[in-house]
Order: sequence, then C-alpha cells, then structure tokens
Amino acid sequence: MSEGTATQRRPGRPRSQEADAAILRAAVDLLVERGAGEASIEQIAQRAGVTRATVYRRFRDKTQLLVQAVEAENGAQSESALTWPNVDRMLDDWAGYLGHSRHRRILRRLYGALDDFPELLAAYHESYGRRRAEGVRDTLHRAREAGHLPADVDIDFLQQLLSGAVLHHLGAYPDTTGADEIREYLATALRQVGYRPAPPGP
Amino acid sequence: MSEGTATQRRPGRPRSQEADAAILRAAVDLLVERGAGEASIEQIAQRAGVTRATVYRRFRDKTQLLVQAVEAENGAQSESALTWPNVDRMLDDWAGYLGHSRHRRILRRLYGALDDFPELLAAYHESYGRRRAEGVRDTLHRAREAGHLPADVDIDFLQQLLSGAVLHHLGAYPDTTGADEIREYLATALRQVGYRPAPPGP
Repeated sequence: MSEGTATQRRPGRPRSQEADAAILRAAVDLLVERGAGEASIEQIAQRAGVTRATVYRRFRDKTQLLVQAVEAENGAQSESALTWPNVDRMLDDWAGYLGHSRHRRILRRLYGALDDFPELLAAYHESYGRRRAEGVRDTLHRAREAGHLPADVDIDFLQQLLSGAVLHHLGAYPDTTGADEIREYLATALRQVGYRPAPPGP
Repeated sequence: MSEGTATQRRPGRPRSQEADAAILRAAVDLLVERGAGEASIEQIAQRAGVTRATVYRRFRDKTQLLVQAVEAENGAQSESALTWPNVDRMLDDWAGYLGHSRHRRILRRLYGALDDFPELLAAYHESYGRRRAEGVRDTLHRAREAGHLPADVDIDFLQQLLSGAVLHHLGAYPDTTGADEIREYLATALRQVGYRPAPPGP
C-alpha cells in the first residue's frame, strides 16, 4: 500500500513505457517496409501486440504517431543534433546517421510520401525538422564567420545543396556504404563551394 | 486489293500507334497517381481501353512498359536533351521540364520506387538515363574548358550536386513553381560552385 501510486493502480500503466516503445518501433518497421501510405494504425497495433485503442490513447492520429516514431528512432542523436561546435562535427554526425540502412530507408520513405501523404513531412518539419534546420544554419554561419567558407557564400542555399546531396546519396549509393565514405562524400560537397576547414591547432 | 498490305490485313493493326499511345499514357497516369508499385498491367490495360494481351504483345513486362512510358512523356525533349551547346541552354531545358507538375511527379515517383521497385530506376538508367548523364557531363566539361567553371571543379561530383539540387527542389518547392524561378534556382546552384557564364558577345 505504501508503494501504491495513482499510476500503479491503473491496470496496464506500469507497462506504459514498454507499450510506447513497442508501438513506436512497429510504426517505423512498417514505414520502412511498406511506406507511410500503407502503414495503418491497425497493422501497427497488431505488430506491437496492443489494441488499436491503446495506440489511440497515446497518439492523436497516424501522422503524429509516425512523426514521434521517426524522431524516437533518431534517438540519442536528437539532443546533440540541434547544434554542433563546427562543421566537421556536424558531418561526423550526419555520416554516422546515414551509415545505417534503416535510417536511409526512413528518409527515403519520408521523401517518398510527398505525393500520397504530404502531411507527414509537413508535420515532421513543424515538430522537429525546423529546429534541426536552424542548428545546421547556425553551424554554417559560424563557419563562414570563422573564414572556413567563402564570405559571399549563400548559407540558405548551401543548406539546400547539402539537403540535395543527401537525397542524391540515398538514391545513388548502396545502403551498405560505410560512414567514412559518406563523410568523404559530404566533405567533397562542401569543398565544391569553397569549404576550407582550419588546420589542426599547434 | 492494290492497297492491301500485310499490316492492313491483320485486324486492329492500323490502330496500333493509337493503342501504343493510349497504353503509354495510361501507364504514366497510374505511375503518377499511385506510384510504380501500385500500377499494374491490368489497371493500365483497363484505363487504356485494351486487353492485357494487347499490352503484353507490345511490352515485355511492367518495368519495360513504365520505362518506355516515362521516356515517351519526355517526348520532344528526348532528342535534343542528349547534348546542349552550353550550360545555359541545358538549364533552360531542365527548367522547362521541371516547370510541369506532371514531370515533377514522375521524377518523385521514380525516386520513390527505390525501395519497392528498384529495378524500375535501374532499367530506366540502362535504357536512357546513362546517355542523358553523358550529355550533361559533356556539357559541363566543355564549360570548364571554356573557363566558365573553375579549373579544379570535379565534374562528376558537380553532376551529383545538380542531381541532388533537383531532388531537393522536387521535395521542397511547390509544383506550381514557374520555369523562370526554377531556372534561377539551378543557376544559383551552379554559381555556388563558381560557374561564371561568358558575357554576351559584342
């Protein structure tokens, strides 16, 4: 009794986090395997071993569930990825992320949903993408101020070029490409626009 | 009798070109509306008003049908798009193409098919994409030789950056974007890597 809490008295509640994790994982599995249009709450619930009602108690709709699921998959990266001390560290993070085939498929599925399920990318951008983009922009601005990028480089446009370079990589290179090779690809993209990182200090 | 030919004696043959056009058009319609995975020979035949047997007499399989359909859609551009007198003319062509929402959706569907139907993009590349890419590379090489691109620019990589810039545009800009605006976007991408077209001659 002394350990009783409101939470524990509600049946099933102690396993709440477990259910959440199972639902989020099942949502990403189905997104990756079938695409956003084909993944249904029904299928997600079934794969997670919960009822549809359980899913709906936790997530407003399929869009919000998929947004949270994709973000959860980004996992530990979510906190650190909002800013970087310098461009090299940012490229390290990106390459690490893009070196996992599951991440590559998630990104392709998000892009691939543009025609059938455009609200998904819009909602993701609203909830997380916008802040991420601001972190990238800040990092690029600081690189320009430090003289590692040409003074006349258009940062907003550079950001679009990098986004495009990632999309091209996702389409043209195999999902087995290692993080080191991806890191070099991204660095090459930046060098084309005049990126010259500072040499290591003495 | 004097006008009789082997072709005319076979029932339905005089309408052959019409049937081809209807099948190709129906294939692109379904690709655009539903994606490559969902478009079936059955549905394409039905929409074109022909039997499945008619489709199979003309096209080996769904992959080849979609490849030919996409290429037919590129239409008049297919001949001229294999080479360009200069980069500016190439960008004019690209912007004209990307200024049509149907073309934008075709390109997104091809990219979006990477996970469910990878053989489609591979077959398109084999039949047409490779030659197109060579035309782009030649045009960029000539621009570098003429001094319109920096001597140290990596042409193969620049081509990947341009491909990425197009993918980003298809995802981030509305399908109502006009050709002039797209032209400026592509020119901005090239300017970031040091493209400086020659001023008009005297």
